[in-house]
Amino acid sequence: MPRFTRSSLIDFAHAVLAAAGLPDVQARQAAEVLVAADARGLASHGLARLPRYLAGLEDGAIDPAAVLEVVHDTPLSCAIDAHGAMGTHAAQAGMSAALDKARAHGIGMATVRDSNHFGIACWYAMQALEHDMIGLVMTNTAALGVPTFGREAMFGTNPLAFAAPAGDERAFVLDMATTAVPRGKIEVRARQGQPLEAGWAVDARGATAVDGPALLDEMRRHAGGGLLPLGGLGTSHGGHKGYGLAVMVDILSGVLSAHGFGAQLRDSGASAGRMGHFFAAFRIDLFRPPEQFRADMDRMLAALRESPPAEGEERVYYSGLVESEREERAQIEGVPLEAGVVATLEGLAARFGVTLPSAREGGPRS
Amino acid sequence: MPRFTRSSLIDFAHAVLAAAGLPDVQARQAAEVLVAADARGLASHGLARLPRYLAGLEDGAIDPAAVLEVVHDTPLSCAIDAHGAMGTHAAQAGMSAALDKARAHGIGMATVRDSNHFGIACWYAMQALEHDMIGLVMTNTAALGVPTFGREAMFGTNPLAFAAPAGDERAFVLDMATTAVPRGKIEVRARQGQPLEAGWAVDARGATAVDGPALLDEMRRHAGGGLLPLGGLGTSHGGHKGYGLAVMVDILSGVLSAHGFGAQLRDSGASAGRMGHFFAAFRIDLFRPPEQFRADMDRMLAALRESPPAEGEERVYYSGLVESEREERAQIEGVPLEAGVVATLEGLAARFGVTLPSAREGGPRS
Repeated sequence: MPRFTRSSLIDFAHAVLAAAGLPDVQARQAAEVLVAADARGLASHGLARLPRYLAGLEDGAIDPAAVLEVVHDTPLSCAIDAHGAMGTHAAQAGMSAALDKARAHGIGMATVRDSNHFGIACWYAMQALEHDMIGLVMTNTAALGVPTFGREAMFGTNPLAFAAPAGDERAFVLDMATTAVPRGKIEVRARQGQPLEAGWAVDARGATAVDGPALLDEMRRHAGGGLLPLGGLGTSHGGHKGYGLAVMVDILSGVLSAHGFGAQLRDSGASAGRMGHFFAAFRIDLFRPPEQFRADMDRMLAALRESPPAEGEERVYYSGLVESEREERAQIEGVPLEAGVVATLEGLAARFGVTLPSAREGGPRS
Repeated sequence: MPRFTRSSLIDFAHAVLAAAGLPDVQARQAAEVLVAADARGLASHGLARLPRYLAGLEDGAIDPAAVLEVVHDTPLSCAIDAHGAMGTHAAQAGMSAALDKARAHGIGMATVRDSNHFGIACWYAMQALEHDMIGLVMTNTAALGVPTFGREAMFGTNPLAFAAPAGDERAFVLDMATTAVPRGKIEVRARQGQPLEAGWAVDARGATAVDGPALLDEMRRHAGGGLLPLGGLGTSHGGHKGYGLAVMVDILSGVLSAHGFGAQLRDSGASAGRMGHFFAAFRIDLFRPPEQFRADMDRMLAALRESPPAEGEERVYYSGLVESEREERAQIEGVPLEAGVVATLEGLAARFGVTLPSAREGGPRS
């Protein structure tokens, strides 16, 4: 894959988003979030998604002129109405409020309503790390997930991110959707003409979905069927647990924020629909000295990393380890982009009159 | 199944635990937690577990004379050292501290170290409901779970419970282990001479475990193998997410509390090992008026409950619904106990010179 310096990609996305009407500071910040996803190897939430944000700016889902409004404020909490602002802008306001309140009082929480897609959830949760805090971030999303024993989409992929600092080890950073797989995994199999795996999705009757193109068509028409929660079909492998986690995320992101929830949330064809978020941060020194916490985290994470792999596997990881390693490599060798994404960016460069940076020369390739 | 009045079972367990040396108030409270599990249909954590608590009192894992110590205290948080006290006693102190602090300031959190098995996690989380708060409870447990790509047990079944109030609907109460299945499910299959299902557990090589008795033997000898995280083997169905959740619970319960974590935690043959817990509660009015929150919860939960079931299924549930319905029925018809549990209690009655209550006469049976 061609690699690009991180700053050149941020400059590019910044220029495109600004040309599309986003205020300059917001365009810069959104560009940083998107490129961070590519640097961490989370390409589905990286620059590949730039066209969807641009579509949102065009069709009005994202209002670049929206002014964030704090509708409720206490020393430990606030509720923000984003009035349709760019999701990365609104989410940063939520996380910053949580961090400020936690710095001042120990714990801070914020909800955001009427926001938009905010990129990778871990971007915000990880901001807790440098302050010796623990960070927690959730968002609801358009309904694609089917409840245990059900057959209609009633909740989103509803991700949650949790970040806790370590000392010498890379931080523990969990960032996970609460469905078993994302829709993208269904789309890949459909393009390959391969059947879906059991435990990924159900069709409009609520039975295991095998035919990817048929399922995607049903999902687009809201005709029933959708993704299964983490744990899969029924209760035999814990599908009811993933379902419960998805609803928990919806309660904190959609009900507590007064945004809306469940099947109400829909994407348009081209852009993501509006959504609600939840942010929390708290100081480790509420419980014990941070340096002791970090030393124990090092012991825990090293023990996981050094635990013997299954036959045929090379390594045991922990959440965030591989992503941090990728980000460190991207800092040295550049951020990798798939050829298809580069082609998309070339199109945007032409459309907005912005120059696409050149891929780096030399250096190792993968 | 024979059914017993709830109060008669509480009186019985109270008398047994007091006879075994637990102070009277602690014995009463532990009895209430255990019988609540049976009333809610969570029989694995009900009176069936009484012999394990008694074994813990006998072998010293549970110290009935332990005095809880608050080792760190702030307006929003405290860290408690239970010094080996009964888990239900120590956990109640943790949840009460979180609730008191949340009542006074909006949010409260507590960690507990050097504690013991505390029964059902939802018992504590649900105490937030009547205060228009959201409750969150976690605990680590003896290591039985194997990391993604690994083959040795490095974390426990590490449950989390989350409770949020509704208005007319029953409350949303999630109480889930973060492994795909509990060890009990392996034991049932082993007794039946049936193979294990793929996605439940791995053997000492890290491959899908099929032979239940062999796996249980490996797990007892700490020879490798164990339960898979929620999401199953590898990453294709999200096993890495369940693994991340299990470690998140261990960070908050074992690292933040300074208790200990991971493979350090072991059960003895007869009793559960010591563990650490995490408790949090926060007021809904930090974000919006509780009556509005509850009205939205009613809309969300009713929509889930009324969503069309899959072909062959009768109903769609949400977390806590079935358990609340069972508890309401138990209030009228009595708490059901399996014949094997009744036989165990008869043995305890004889051993401790306590009278076992009679099963209720008349009324529907199931």
